[in-house]
Amino acid sequence: MAPLRTALLQGPAGVPADIEQSLGVLDGAAGRAAGQGARLLVTSELFLTGYALGERLAARAEAAGGAAERRVAEIAARHRIGIVYGMPERDGRAVFNTARFAGPDGEPTVAYRKAHLFGPYERGAFTPGAEPVVQAELDGVRIGLLICYDVEFPEAVRAHALAGTELLAVPTALMRPYEFVARTLVPARAYENGLHIAYANRCGPEGDQHFAGLSCLVGPDGVVRARAGHGAELLVADADPAVRAAARAETPYLTDRRPELYRSLHRDRSSD
Amino acid sequence: MAPLRTALLQGPAGVPADIEQSLGVLDGAAGRAAGQGARLLVTSELFLTGYALGERLAARAEAAGGAAERRVAEIAARHRIGIVYGMPERDGRAVFNTARFAGPDGEPTVAYRKAHLFGPYERGAFTPGAEPVVQAELDGVRIGLLICYDVEFPEAVRAHALAGTELLAVPTALMRPYEFVARTLVPARAYENGLHIAYANRCGPEGDQHFAGLSCLVGPDGVVRARAGHGAELLVADADPAVRAAARAETPYLTDRRPELYRSLHRDRSSD
Repeated sequence: MAPLRTALLQGPAGVPADIEQSLGVLDGAAGRAAGQGARLLVTSELFLTGYALGERLAARAEAAGGAAERRVAEIAARHRIGIVYGMPERDGRAVFNTARFAGPDGEPTVAYRKAHLFGPYERGAFTPGAEPVVQAELDGVRIGLLICYDVEFPEAVRAHALAGTELLAVPTALMRPYEFVARTLVPARAYENGLHIAYANRCGPEGDQHFAGLSCLVGPDGVVRARAGHGAELLVADADPAVRAAARAETPYLTDRRPELYRSLHRDRSSD
Repeated sequence: MAPLRTALLQGPAGVPADIEQSLGVLDGAAGRAAGQGARLLVTSELFLTGYALGERLAARAEAAGGAAERRVAEIAARHRIGIVYGMPERDGRAVFNTARFAGPDGEPTVAYRKAHLFGPYERGAFTPGAEPVVQAELDGVRIGLLICYDVEFPEAVRAHALAGTELLAVPTALMRPYEFVARTLVPARAYENGLHIAYANRCGPEGDQHFAGLSCLVGPDGVVRARAGHGAELLVADADPAVRAAARAETPYLTDRRPELYRSLHRDRSSD
């Protein structure tokens, strides 16, 4: 199987952009990524609306099948590239922090709702998701979706590895001073699970936040294939299945686990 | 509560040492560590016998309460320092790769049997342990024990964090070219679990192996308090409970977990 060339769009957060402007940026980035042979483009958490929206967030949430989703699907199909992007999703009275995968062939969009909400702002604005593993298929590679804080929980990534995820796409909005996550935790996750991780962050200031940049594509051998700095950048690198196969032979964590010893990890706090 | 000053003995593996020689090295190191104010000394995996013993290993295994265990307890009590050390343990026909904690007050030794065995050599030589969390108390700090490959499994360390471990002592025999584990995976474990890790490795060649050194004391903020190079060294650094409290407030992973979503992690492979 050929390597999956993967692009990561690290963008300035700036003033929370309107969706129309974000769609224009996405269209341009998809064209440039496809022009470099990429088959997958991963963008940041809540890419379409901005992250630090406060009370404006709920008004920009869109139900499944909405206009913005259809626009991104059209961009993906036109450039023949898979696109992972974030946006707030409305479902009845609930609002979720959602990442979607739009495939290059116009297939229906796949949606993942962030399960681990970070801090009082997110817990006030969003309902947490209840489905730990959401996947899509692209060129024979099983793509998994997580969002930002999710990936910091080893359990969340392990669940993906056990479900066969080969490349984990993680839209993120990692702030200063949490650079340790991008530099150390994300490579550790890739290594301990034998999968690639495409971790696409925002950069620059937005509201009271300052996003850390440092987007990366990391291999299952722990080697960083591409790493952004602190400014805007379109990273492009290959996720090679041969590297996954070699890593899983060299560090066979998934087969050497002792699941019968891990009972305490899923025990509900209320039953402790 | 005062910081727990912790010493890590990184030693050359050399020709597998006899137990008498290892006890002499341990006595000397305990004296030097105590002289620098350390209350805990962590040594490497199978410290007393050597690691790459092949068929000689079973003959050196000792049942609980044996002569070597009593000798280490005496050393610990004489220097008034807790000691974590590895040795092969016999129990009926089974041989375990065991780490023991000998307390500074002559209390009974606590034993942990390695649960995750690495590669054909270990799986041929040892029976895997069945108790994921073994702890001891030292100066009001809850010490946990894991051995080498165990710590590479996020589930094993998470089980300790959930059980209240504050300082995880990890005798190890990490070989080249697995330096990623010492440099990246161990700091990630400390950070994602809000605990200190004392990771004490061998160094130099033994049999066909070459041990990687790089022993470290890492804080729950991901900061490496002390890091050895590739040669023999006695590291001494403080494990400060104030750092643990600050880290758990800053990155509250243990309270932000979603245990109800982690069911797949403890499901037995045979039931998949």
